[in-house]
Amino acid sequence: MNVTPEPPERLQTVLRYQGRKFAYEVNRLRLPNGAEGTWECIYHPGGALAVPVLADGRLVLVEQYRFAAQGRLLEFPAGTVEPGEAPQQTIEREIQEEIGYRAGRWLSLGTFFLAPGYSDEIIYAFLACDLELLDHPPTGDADEDLRPVLMTPAELEAAILAGRPVDAKTVTSFFLARPHLPQP
Amino acid sequence: MNVTPEPPERLQTVLRYQGRKFAYEVNRLRLPNGAEGTWECIYHPGGALAVPVLADGRLVLVEQYRFAAQGRLLEFPAGTVEPGEAPQQTIEREIQEEIGYRAGRWLSLGTFFLAPGYSDEIIYAFLACDLELLDHPPTGDADEDLRPVLMTPAELEAAILAGRPVDAKTVTSFFLARPHLPQP
Repeated sequence: MNVTPEPPERLQTVLRYQGRKFAYEVNRLRLPNGAEGTWECIYHPGGALAVPVLADGRLVLVEQYRFAAQGRLLEFPAGTVEPGEAPQQTIEREIQEEIGYRAGRWLSLGTFFLAPGYSDEIIYAFLACDLELLDHPPTGDADEDLRPVLMTPAELEAAILAGRPVDAKTVTSFFLARPHLPQP
Repeated sequence: MNVTPEPPERLQTVLRYQGRKFAYEVNRLRLPNGAEGTWECIYHPGGALAVPVLADGRLVLVEQYRFAAQGRLLEFPAGTVEPGEAPQQTIEREIQEEIGYRAGRWLSLGTFFLAPGYSDEIIYAFLACDLELLDHPPTGDADEDLRPVLMTPAELEAAILAGRPVDAKTVTSFFLARPHLPQP
């Protein structure tokens, strides 16, 4: 994804909160079309996501508790890019913690914005192949509550179309991955 | 989308900012697995999105300036659900303002979470059919900077896979819409 840069002019910036994973600012901006206004924005270091593919073609997802959704969603493994990390390093670490696999081969699937109306977060999506199940996977964050779920691409498509609770980064990454998945 | 409700226990809530479109809170929570912690969250009234289909099968998108992305993204028309509005009312209004069409027929494509790691925003996606070009479309927000873009489904798929800047709600809604689009 290549965005032709057109930064807004920042007239005033107020940092309202520096959270664990992102900053929340209220900015007075002048946009390229001359409009001025006050907008709230999350400044986020980005997220890295894996579409992990087993040798038999099944995908490894997680069913994850999300307090903001007040329930469990079907998602691909993902994590916030930590300071000093490249997105691929982030997701190499995250899939070991979240699903207990190491990947031998990675392919970039591209990038996309998640919620550009109020967040600068970019998702870096990767295909993770040549998966090896770890005997002793590292433990993840104590507050993460998730379990791995194996699905064929056809099962995942059917689940999404049937309205199983999912998030947008999972469906978008699946869309980007499909041309690269082994044909059934 | 039906999420089985498992609300977290709210131990403390601090409203950090009431913005124009959403509230930003910092919450001390106890999750269903017993983990306690402090999480930041955007509480958002939801967004409504249309996949508008012309009689010839082309889709109507917008190329929209997004300050958070510092540039222009290819997106389906969408807007924030206003107080007292049903999501379909929101998007009926938004497509008149954003692309200058009225739709004669609407089909719900379902709902999904946008960024459930830090936002409770749900996107309500609709297919908009039987489009009628308005002679005098209502004017939208002065701060919106966008232009309509017509694409066939094949052109949109190619653009997404080629890395044209997009957002996750657009790709996810396209995924949900495809089984309902007229076959070329």
